[in-house]
Amino acid sequence: MKSEQLRQHVLDANLEIVRRGLVLYTWGNASGIDRAEGVIAIKPSGVPYGNMTAADIVLVDLDGKTVDGKLKPSSDLDTHLVLYKAFELIGGIVHTHSRTATAWAQACREIPCLGTTHADYFHGPVPVTRHLGAADIHSDYEGATGRAIVEAFDGLDPVAVPGVLVAGHAPFTWGKTAAEAAYHSVVLEELARIAMQTLAINPHAAPLPKAQLDKHYSRKHGKNATYGQG
Amino acid sequence: MKSEQLRQHVLDANLEIVRRGLVLYTWGNASGIDRAEGVIAIKPSGVPYGNMTAADIVLVDLDGKTVDGKLKPSSDLDTHLVLYKAFELIGGIVHTHSRTATAWAQACREIPCLGTTHADYFHGPVPVTRHLGAADIHSDYEGATGRAIVEAFDGLDPVAVPGVLVAGHAPFTWGKTAAEAAYHSVVLEELARIAMQTLAINPHAAPLPKAQLDKHYSRKHGKNATYGQG
Amino acid sequence: MKSEQLRQHVLDANLEIVRRGLVLYTWGNASGIDRAEGVIAIKPSGVPYGNMTAADIVLVDLDGKTVDGKLKPSSDLDTHLVLYKAFELIGGIVHTHSRTATAWAQACREIPCLGTTHADYFHGPVPVTRHLGAADIHSDYEGATGRAIVEAFDGLDPVAVPGVLVAGHAPFTWGKTAAEAAYHSVVLEELARIAMQTLAINPHAAPLPKAQLDKHYSRKHGKNATYGQG
Amino acid sequence: MKSEQLRQHVLDANLEIVRRGLVLYTWGNASGIDRAEGVIAIKPSGVPYGNMTAADIVLVDLDGKTVDGKLKPSSDLDTHLVLYKAFELIGGIVHTHSRTATAWAQACREIPCLGTTHADYFHGPVPVTRHLGAADIHSDYEGATGRAIVEAFDGLDPVAVPGVLVAGHAPFTWGKTAAEAAYHSVVLEELARIAMQTLAINPHAAPLPKAQLDKHYSRKHGKNATYGQG
Repeated sequence: MKSEQLRQHVLDANLEIVRRGLVLYTWGNASGIDRAEGVIAIKPSGVPYGNMTAADIVLVDLDGKTVDGKLKPSSDLDTHLVLYKAFELIGGIVHTHSRTATAWAQACREIPCLGTTHADYFHGPVPVTRHLGAADIHSDYEGATGRAIVEAFDGLDPVAVPGVLVAGHAPFTWGKTAAEAAYHSVVLEELARIAMQTLAINPHAAPLPKAQLDKHYSRKHGKNATYGQG
Repeated sequence: MKSEQLRQHVLDANLEIVRRGLVLYTWGNASGIDRAEGVIAIKPSGVPYGNMTAADIVLVDLDGKTVDGKLKPSSDLDTHLVLYKAFELIGGIVHTHSRTATAWAQACREIPCLGTTHADYFHGPVPVTRHLGAADIHSDYEGATGRAIVEAFDGLDPVAVPGVLVAGHAPFTWGKTAAEAAYHSVVLEELARIAMQTLAINPHAAPLPKAQLDKHYSRKHGKNATYGQG
Repeated sequence: MKSEQLRQHVLDANLEIVRRGLVLYTWGNASGIDRAEGVIAIKPSGVPYGNMTAADIVLVDLDGKTVDGKLKPSSDLDTHLVLYKAFELIGGIVHTHSRTATAWAQACREIPCLGTTHADYFHGPVPVTRHLGAADIHSDYEGATGRAIVEAFDGLDPVAVPGVLVAGHAPFTWGKTAAEAAYHSVVLEELARIAMQTLAINPHAAPLPKAQLDKHYSRKHGKNATYGQG
Repeated sequence: MKSEQLRQHVLDANLEIVRRGLVLYTWGNASGIDRAEGVIAIKPSGVPYGNMTAADIVLVDLDGKTVDGKLKPSSDLDTHLVLYKAFELIGGIVHTHSRTATAWAQACREIPCLGTTHADYFHGPVPVTRHLGAADIHSDYEGATGRAIVEAFDGLDPVAVPGVLVAGHAPFTWGKTAAEAAYHSVVLEELARIAMQTLAINPHAAPLPKAQLDKHYSRKHGKNATYGQG
């Protein structure tokens, strides 16, 4: 039962990134974790979204061994596993090739925090990983991708910065749940677009001052948050 | 009754900016004022637009005290209040994070009047505020945002220039009613996009000559207007 | 009867530019002429497209005097009249503020013929008019706009180059009928977008060689055309 | 019967590129080949997609002679014929004027492989042909276009690089079937958009390292492919 709920929840997150226009064909995947059970639910590899059902979602353990499901899990599974192990407070992960966030990743440039829209969600720039080396690529490529992400978060709080650009590849986002990870993917793509346009209009646009970054982030997050009805 | 009409009108303006694609998630708000009654109707904070009804719209007085409504008003309320007090001829205000107008705001660059499309609605450039200082940010941030807007209109007529870019933040527009404020938000976003593309094609594009700016603005506005069926 | 057909035809062209996404609110107009009768049918000024019927289309003569119709004709009527008088082979005119063609007009830069897509429709660059002077602006502005277009076609064949950018304003296109004029507006906007992107990718992109320009244009036009089923 | 299946399949590919937004009006065509029978099915010239049926698809032999069908084949037929003869492993070809791939073609610049999204489909840059000379243009223009493509593939494997940009013109893609050729057209347009944005963000963005290019391409292709459920 519990794992059926997780499957449904992960299916919804996978469908949400399609509905929001972040995914062409099968270029994306979402997963969620039940930490109490040590079970991860993830999209199957290369399967079209059209007729996907909760039963198609694959259940694996933290070593990536399939616990339940007939299909092969996403080829990016090992990246997800590394992140779940390293970032203990996250409950869902989403990977897309959304157009403009991918362009920033390919440009190998972090997305600076140029305005309050960004500060409302990311407490600082969206970091970019280092490029993978030949050794990373030839053995355990997907795991190495995860480790490069973790490395990029040295000194950063993954809860306050819920996403990353993998150099030469594309974005990953995360959140308390798969739904929140999907939400952060949508937000990240929009921030990427606004930032690209900002630099087109003014290549010397300055990052938001630290005081305003803190102010906006804390309006929406933490125990003193004032935004919303909570 | 009167306040119920105002609520419905403000709900419609909130839904219009969503329909027109200016709003992602809850990133926007519209308000309207009944100056005779001293009552302002505004969107509640952080509430999704999907099921919003007129009853969700919050009624407040000019000091921001809730007069009627169960929900917390928009976190941007204090900005609206400052504008209603300073700009006595306006009846509605809309705030969005529409993509390209937000990019101009982040670029901290006024939108020059590069053509007649712009001149039909804004009698001159769309101004950009100064950046807020640390003192503004740490106390009464939203009120300070409103005061920075008013400051930017020193010497400008807010009726002839029905919108502004808040530096590092996003646009605000206004009008005789909430509906007109929403209309101006849609127009501003389109002007922002055309202007960005104009500068991409010709970084030295010149502003429209003053005579043509005046001509176009007066074709549509004032007692000698010739446009439309009026 | 004949004029009712013309009205319907002009209504269809007005609705087509809306369907194709070239028009925000009321920012465009289409007209058509019956040269035998000396009657022009044109969109009324500032009327929303939503409920427009053929009866709303205004009939005027070549001096702009209303022949039939209850509404005021488009404020751009005088521009249309000048073009119908100067370009004797055209039967329809469309004016829009479509985003990227307008950006080229504001940039005051002709659209070079950078590829075969362009050459299939425009036998050379899309010209841009000179800026209007103060005298033009202060008296008979719309007529002066038409005369500036005619001036820009000195030495050009308006049949082979079915559109123009009015500097600081927006495009006008034309064709054998109002429907063809609308079709050329759609094509022009797409050519404007491809050309803008071409220059973003390679600022030194060269115009198509003359031999290829001629080849492509003549594949689709003239008595030796080979394209289509005709 | 067999040729009716081919016709239906080619019709589907033609409709797919319309559904995916790659085609304005009649600006595109898809074909497929039955190599055993020596029969090619191709879209008719200049016919709108709206009411097209399988019976409208023209059957020709490898010399371009119509085998069955009442309509004239696409004016680009001779380009398709050259490609089918030169690239013996392909079974379908698609030609579009999709916006950003066309811009790269007009810019006369190959699309560098800037990321893994590209490497998943094209094993290296998307090549661009040389410009055609006057002799090419004046005699057998469409055949010369095909030969310029073949020339650009000197030393390249058309199976591993399933598309090309024709300088000053637009893209052609191919695949094992017409459906796969259409799929590659959609992918190419997206890669073209991401690459253009990448260079806007970082004009000095570096191509993906060779090891990573090989890794990604071989994850999806060849006998060691690990992607999908196969």
